[in-house]
Amino acid sequence: MLAFLDFFGIAVFAITGALVAGKKRFDVFGVLVVALITSLGGGTLRDVILDAHPMVWIQNTTYLGAAILAALSTFFWVRIRHIPLRMLEVSDAIGLAFFTIAGAQKAAALGHAPEICLLMGLMTGVAGGVLRDIVCNEIPLIFHKEIYATAAISGGAAYLLALQLGIGMSLAMMLGMGITLSLRLAGIYRGWSLPAFLTAGR
Amino acid sequence: MLAFLDFFGIAVFAITGALVAGKKRFDVFGVLVVALITSLGGGTLRDVILDAHPMVWIQNTTYLGAAILAALSTFFWVRIRHIPLRMLEVSDAIGLAFFTIAGAQKAAALGHAPEICLLMGLMTGVAGGVLRDIVCNEIPLIFHKEIYATAAISGGAAYLLALQLGIGMSLAMMLGMGITLSLRLAGIYRGWSLPAFLTAGR
Amino acid sequence: MLAFLDFFGIAVFAITGALVAGKKRFDVFGVLVVALITSLGGGTLRDVILDAHPMVWIQNTTYLGAAILAALSTFFWVRIRHIPLRMLEVSDAIGLAFFTIAGAQKAAALGHAPEICLLMGLMTGVAGGVLRDIVCNEIPLIFHKEIYATAAISGGAAYLLALQLGIGMSLAMMLGMGITLSLRLAGIYRGWSLPAFLTAGR
Repeated sequence: MLAFLDFFGIAVFAITGALVAGKKRFDVFGVLVVALITSLGGGTLRDVILDAHPMVWIQNTTYLGAAILAALSTFFWVRIRHIPLRMLEVSDAIGLAFFTIAGAQKAAALGHAPEICLLMGLMTGVAGGVLRDIVCNEIPLIFHKEIYATAAISGGAAYLLALQLGIGMSLAMMLGMGITLSLRLAGIYRGWSLPAFLTAGR
Repeated sequence: MLAFLDFFGIAVFAITGALVAGKKRFDVFGVLVVALITSLGGGTLRDVILDAHPMVWIQNTTYLGAAILAALSTFFWVRIRHIPLRMLEVSDAIGLAFFTIAGAQKAAALGHAPEICLLMGLMTGVAGGVLRDIVCNEIPLIFHKEIYATAAISGGAAYLLALQLGIGMSLAMMLGMGITLSLRLAGIYRGWSLPAFLTAGR
Repeated sequence: MLAFLDFFGIAVFAITGALVAGKKRFDVFGVLVVALITSLGGGTLRDVILDAHPMVWIQNTTYLGAAILAALSTFFWVRIRHIPLRMLEVSDAIGLAFFTIAGAQKAAALGHAPEICLLMGLMTGVAGGVLRDIVCNEIPLIFHKEIYATAAISGGAAYLLALQLGIGMSLAMMLGMGITLSLRLAGIYRGWSLPAFLTAGR
């Protein structure tokens, strides 16, 4: 199940990388570079910080193949079909839900404290997208006004809490992913947001 | 003493992260993300490069708690009190002084050469702030025209030299931090700077 | 030969870092910071991901000295001599060719699969320059419209293929570097590029 999440998370984030790089009119290899940064960035950062070597995508090149295939398919598909405006944000939301739970799960399997598992889930979920947006010189999606980090933290916390309460892992994962995805989609489609950080001086 | 520096450095940098994210009007979880990147970024980069696992903030979640508490306090405090304009830069200067010496000290304790200790001090001191400014799409403070990297390098070099001369560690640390902080404050309040890099062509 | 490539790659990328930071009018220590990020960034990222500790520049401070010397020479040299406009791009192309092959070679020596070696070559070649451009708030050279990632991937693939075909390592390296450098120079001087990523919607 964890391998499944990693695999689909990687493919989905590769699509978002290809879409953002595409808007910038990069060539096919530039698109591939951005897709790989986006799809491998979050898990790589988690594994580097937790010293969890060798990384899954280095041991098993199927993951790399999935990212490249997803990116190239996106690259060619958008040349022949119109892409709905929301596709980038919705793909990113799915990747966020997959990777947040996969990241928390990996840290839990390594025996880390719940706070660290939650932080690793958040980091795995958001880092790839932040790197994608930084290299493409876009304001990271996570810092737009709709709910984003909140969705990852809520879903990750629900997952870890469910595990503590003895709920089975598959159910806990679905619960966590469902919460992250629902909150993020509410941000995208309903404009849900939390109050901004206001300073008294204004 | 090193734990103390790490602890206060983390709290102070978390405050600067919350202040920069606040100016960008991020919500509370966005502010937390930036605060954690700022406060944990420098030490994490140092430990990853030196292969010094497990990291202190992963083993002992008190550090994480300090960063979160400092960020949330800043988030709520600025809603009720006016924040002096200089507070961001002065907090950043204190964090720079703490982390530069803590970084150099950690590398020295691992037996690295003085040049590497100096570089690790510089990296620990500046990386969190650079990451903060990059994710917030600001020009990093380190690259503004006043003295910044110069302050970290001077304080770090003074600390390492004092150790070589047999001065006690506490005194050497205070000397190093004093020099870094004084030079940086001179940059902030007096506008001290070094000549820029001019090209003959202009 | 690998040490030679690393050494010259580090010096050449330090020059490019000093040139970009110089255009931004950073002071001498700001220029040094950018030069070190540029010259050490790619190899550091590769070694962190492959868990190849200790890194070469930490064990042997000659590399650090070469980067600092190259950056300072550039800093002072541009004050007395006019710098040709193309110098930044050509230095970057030479560094790209050196580091791509050195990165692929290092991964191959560690026994990784060819796809991973190719990716590590690409990452070693481009990451330092991407970091340089991000901290200086420039659009990374790799994402400009001329051939860039394509040059690194083609040269790295040629090098790995030549090794597989039993061609000697020195010859394979020269072949790989020659292809990367030629393609990139064709991008710079002839404006060679691949078709951009067009969306059907426009």
